[in-house]
Parts: sequence; C-alpha cells; structure tokens
Amino acid sequence: MLTKARIKYIKSLQLKKYRKQEQRFVVEGEKSVIELLKSDFLTEMLLVTEAFQQRHSALLKQFNGECVMVKPSELNGLGELKTNEMALAVAVMKENKPFEMHATKWTLVLDDIRDPGNLGTIIRIADWYALQGIIASPETTDLYSGKVIQATMGSFTRVPVFYTSLPEFLHGNSVAVLGAFLQGENIHHFASPEGGFLVIGNESAGISHEVARYVTHRVTIPRFGKAESLNAAVATAVLCDNLNRQSAR
Amino acid sequence: MLTKARIKYIKSLQLKKYRKQEQRFVVEGEKSVIELLKSDFLTEMLLVTEAFQQRHSALLKQFNGECVMVKPSELNGLGELKTNEMALAVAVMKENKPFEMHATKWTLVLDDIRDPGNLGTIIRIADWYALQGIIASPETTDLYSGKVIQATMGSFTRVPVFYTSLPEFLHGNSVAVLGAFLQGENIHHFASPEGGFLVIGNESAGISHEVARYVTHRVTIPRFGKAESLNAAVATAVLCDNLNRQSAR
Repeated sequence: MLTKARIKYIKSLQLKKYRKQEQRFVVEGEKSVIELLKSDFLTEMLLVTEAFQQRHSALLKQFNGECVMVKPSELNGLGELKTNEMALAVAVMKENKPFEMHATKWTLVLDDIRDPGNLGTIIRIADWYALQGIIASPETTDLYSGKVIQATMGSFTRVPVFYTSLPEFLHGNSVAVLGAFLQGENIHHFASPEGGFLVIGNESAGISHEVARYVTHRVTIPRFGKAESLNAAVATAVLCDNLNRQSAR
Repeated sequence: MLTKARIKYIKSLQLKKYRKQEQRFVVEGEKSVIELLKSDFLTEMLLVTEAFQQRHSALLKQFNGECVMVKPSELNGLGELKTNEMALAVAVMKENKPFEMHATKWTLVLDDIRDPGNLGTIIRIADWYALQGIIASPETTDLYSGKVIQATMGSFTRVPVFYTSLPEFLHGNSVAVLGAFLQGENIHHFASPEGGFLVIGNESAGISHEVARYVTHRVTIPRFGKAESLNAAVATAVLCDNLNRQSAR
C-alpha cells in the first residue's frame, strides 16, 4: 500500500540533502525503471501500475525487493515527471569511487556543469560513444537528481561518474588532456591521440584556470555562422563524434 | 513606470494564445535583449535596470521605442528566468513566411520537435553551422515561447523559422532530403550532396511516415556504446558538423 510515510519518503528524495542522508534516489517512467532493473544497481522499492506489471511480468518476477501495486493516479504527482502512469523505483546510490581507466580510451572530465539537463544529456552521449566514464568536479550538479536521471534515458546505469577535485585528479597524470575552448585547434583537422581525457567547462565560464593548467591540447569546434558558442552537451557530442571517427580510422 | 496593467500584459505573453493574439513575445536577460536590439526585430517596449543602462548606454540611445527604468526586484519574477536583474523586452513577431533557400546550402526540417529546450538549442546550432533556416511542422513547439527564446542564446535573431505542413512543403522539391534515422548510412562515410534538407524527427516517434516518404537519403550517427538514441538537438549538431566538414573539404 502507498502509505503517507512512503509518499513523504519518496518526495523527500527530490532534495539532495535527503538523497545524501538516505543514499537513495528515485527513478521514474517505464524505460528508466526497466533499465534500472536490468542494471547492477540495487533497487530497494518499486511502485508499479497494472499496465507496467502486465508488460514486464518476466522482469518483475526476477525482482526480490519490495513491489507495491499503485494506480496511475497515485503515481502521477509522486515524482518529478509531468506524467508517469507506469512505474517509479527507489534505488541505492553507488559509492563515489574511481573507475577503471585505460590510456587508449576516452574519459570525460566535467568542470562544473550546473544544468541537470546538460549533465543527463552528457551521460547519454558518453554511453552512446562508449566512453569509460565521467570525472566530475564537486560543483557539478548531482547525478542522482530526478532531472539528471531522466535526461540520461537509462544511460546512468552504464556510465560511471566519479566526483572529485579535478586539479588533484589530473595532477601527475600522463595521458593527453583535451580541453574544449572557443579558441583551439580545429577538431576536424586535429591529429588525436588514441585516448585520454576530454574536459568540458562550465556553461558560462568555460574551463577554470585551475583545470586549464592541466590541458595538453586545446581543441575547438569550427564555427561557420554567428552563434557565440554551443551548448555544453552539444559541444561534448560533436567532440566525441570527432574523436571516435579518428579512432575508427 | 511599471503599472499593474503592464505587468499583466507581459505575463500574459507567457501563453501562446496571447502571444498569437498580440503578435508579441518576451525576450529576457542581458545577452538576449542586446542581440534583440542589434537585430532587425522590432522592439516595442524595454524594461531596463540602472546596471543595464550604464553598461549599454550607446545601444539604448539608438532605441526609439518605450524604455522603462525598473528595479532589479521588479524585473525578477516578471518573466520566466529564475533571475534577471538586467533587462526584459517585448518584441514584435515576424510574419510566418518562407525564406530564401539555395540548393547548395543546408536547411533544417523539424518534424514535430516538442521540447522547447530542444528547439532553442537547435536554433543555436543552426546559427553556429550557418544553415539557411528552419522549416518546422505545425506541431513543433512555438518558437516564441520564453524557454525557446532563452535556449537560443540570441540566435533566434539570425535563424529564420517557417512553420508549415511538411508533406506539402517537401512535395515536388528537387533537392536532397536527408533524414536522421537510427538505421541509415553511416554519416562518417556518407558522400554528401552540397546542400539540401536535413530532417530531424520527433523526440519519441522519430520522423513520421508522411515525411519519411520524401527522404531521399537515410543517414545515421554511428553508435559505439549502448545508449538507444541521442537527444534530438545533440543528433542535429553531430549531423550538421559532419555535413559542414564535408562541404569544407
């Protein structure tokens, strides 16, 4: 049953403070919940409607946690999605720790990405281009917020994110560090190393001075028209496409 | 003075119904208002703070419309931006009409893009890559909504958008029509024509059957990892980058 205490608990997880305290986060909508159940994340609680249960009975049979049947009207308004008539899950956060990195593959470094939609879209891009994962500055927006999880379209289950001080992390590393700048070498003609770090800066301020010191190659996306810049997630995708094109040669 | 009637009028323009009726829209924030004033859009009314006036006095001297001095506290909450302590403008919509198109250049065709952030970002991308403009299906979200204008970062002043029935528009045209599909020719190896139309489909449904009939070349962005798809604006940017790279060869 969907008790008042449960509703309160789920809603409290919309705030970073309570997510941190409980080490839990919310996943909403059919596609995202399915990706969650298929992943190595631990799902603590599942709220599903009859429609979801009928469509995904096989997947639900494998689920050992608590599963509550709810009406679509109960689900709507419980989370942050405008409409969600299928499912909502409470899952356990993963420990914030470094992931395996090979020098011949690419890893994204996010220097203070503040917009949840941008972070979610960047995680989806990292998944599409098979990057190894994301190193994020402590000021980068919280991976586990509803808007970020939603914008990843399930890719949060496959892309590891490690929050840490970027100067400390980059200090003493020996692989190439590409930085996206408005002035830099044209990525269309850039002779790229096989792998390394690709640094994407903050939406307004770009890459900070502290991080720029560690950049070994400044690259830029050639501009043909008059826009001053590209959105951070858009720039990430264009750069990843160019780097992957080079590796594939 | 910022009268109650004025506040009500400005706030009413947040709704498409009133924008259509008045043929006016709102532009918010320092950068966007500056781009508006430098453009060929007609600005009807300007609300500026002292800070904005001091920084942009030369630009304001050239402005012949009604200019009202307001306090930052008055500006905040008047529009849709979380914080805006600089300026807000009411401008006149442009007539919905076709723009000049050359067969050797690229024009975007949007088949039902519903998310305002996506449309705004796509307009910014079109500006960056110097596309000729955008043909949008009638169901595509309204160009003049606050969120779209905001996401264009001023590029709405430079990229013409024409809303029209896509099948009617594409019928009988003789240039190449590229369509972004999940299955199609790899854009990295695609021998592209010099120009034509690039069709981007709806965020969930992709390109509709009615429009797909007119697509002469199905293209796709190669996937290296596991994400099912890319965000519509992100895909637009990667395709435009590849098409421009080819033209630049």
